[in-house]
Amino acid sequence: MLSKSQIKLITRLKQKKHRITDGFFVAEGIKVINELLDSSLELYHLFTLEPFKSHTEKQTLITEAELKKISFLTTPNKALAVFKIPSQKNTQLQGLIVALDSIRDPGNLGTIIRLCDWFGIKELVCSKETVDCYNPKVVQATMGSITRVNINYLDLNTFLTEAETPIFGAFMDGKNVYKSELPKEGIIIMGNEANGISKAIEQQVTKHIAIPRFGDLQATESLNVATATAILLSEFRRK
Amino acid sequence: MLSKSQIKLITRLKQKKHRITDGFFVAEGIKVINELLDSSLELYHLFTLEPFKSHTEKQTLITEAELKKISFLTTPNKALAVFKIPSQKNTQLQGLIVALDSIRDPGNLGTIIRLCDWFGIKELVCSKETVDCYNPKVVQATMGSITRVNINYLDLNTFLTEAETPIFGAFMDGKNVYKSELPKEGIIIMGNEANGISKAIEQQVTKHIAIPRFGDLQATESLNVATATAILLSEFRRK
Repeated sequence: MLSKSQIKLITRLKQKKHRITDGFFVAEGIKVINELLDSSLELYHLFTLEPFKSHTEKQTLITEAELKKISFLTTPNKALAVFKIPSQKNTQLQGLIVALDSIRDPGNLGTIIRLCDWFGIKELVCSKETVDCYNPKVVQATMGSITRVNINYLDLNTFLTEAETPIFGAFMDGKNVYKSELPKEGIIIMGNEANGISKAIEQQVTKHIAIPRFGDLQATESLNVATATAILLSEFRRK
Repeated sequence: MLSKSQIKLITRLKQKKHRITDGFFVAEGIKVINELLDSSLELYHLFTLEPFKSHTEKQTLITEAELKKISFLTTPNKALAVFKIPSQKNTQLQGLIVALDSIRDPGNLGTIIRLCDWFGIKELVCSKETVDCYNPKVVQATMGSITRVNINYLDLNTFLTEAETPIFGAFMDGKNVYKSELPKEGIIIMGNEANGISKAIEQQVTKHIAIPRFGDLQATESLNVATATAILLSEFRRK
């Protein structure tokens, strides 16, 4: 049975400002919730159609109609959990780091977090204009990877000014990435969906690279940012 | 001014069965519409807030309120166009071909079509269970690439049985793709978001490959299918 105050607590978390003041975020679906329960994240409460074996003291069995009321999804997925937002750990300046310059689409950010996890990228730096990683659609798209990548929202310009490793950015007229020497340490910047890397951030880039296009002259001008990230991380990691 | 019969014509096209019987599909947004107008596609009619310079005889100026009524998007984007679905051209069995085994997410299919365009893949074969490429969300995500890739919906099993080139599929226990010899001719199969490549199709695969994971043991089990396609196409095309 769901109380009015519980409904209010959950629906508030759709908005970033409330996530910040309340310190909670929402995850939905058995698979994602199980991944998060297995991590160091602290569960606040679990609302579910069928009982979970663990965390029994923090779960409430609800009906499908109740789930529909609190779910952020068009097609609710059996369970909804509220987790505490963990405190930020400072970015460790070692190895490969991915930095995002104003990524706006939650699906893109979620997919990039999942890619970082796959390719062993421990640190993700986001400009303050990048979509919030605790946005429910981002959490959904990460498939649990959000607990394994350290994500910091920083003033990207300041962060890059202080960096001492090479700073990579993809541009149409950059050097063919397949023929570039790619180090084990460095920062890879990915730009906004519509505008790419902003002028101010471009000035910080020390290595201009390009993903060659193989289609003919009429072919698409650009790649989706998450697929471009996939190709670049694959190039940096392959031997 | 929008007529009742125009509204009915457009809203019908949200459903695949009506797209098939009527032979039309919808595209939204200035950028995508301009790409499609530049192609060999036949425009049926254009509904727009501001006049387009070309195709003036086939456009109706509408108000924002009217656009809201016919748009399939939560945030309508200045113009909506109805195009004729072109007749299918047979798949040309040459070069690299991408084949999709039950891709269900429109965003994934759209992104894969855009990737095919970028990497010069002319032929995309979809199993009959794959989401319709004229679904409005697919058209949106292709960013115009849909006119440059030849897409056929076929019985995938029969198609593969008749193929004479190597058939590649990605599996956890496949051969490291970074160390595999990748030919200029062949078929690359990408599987369903939740279940991967189906058992029946797996039996047709002649080359099992894998994208190595660089994260630790706890890292994500899988990649999103569009990002996996990006990595594989990049590997096949790079020299």
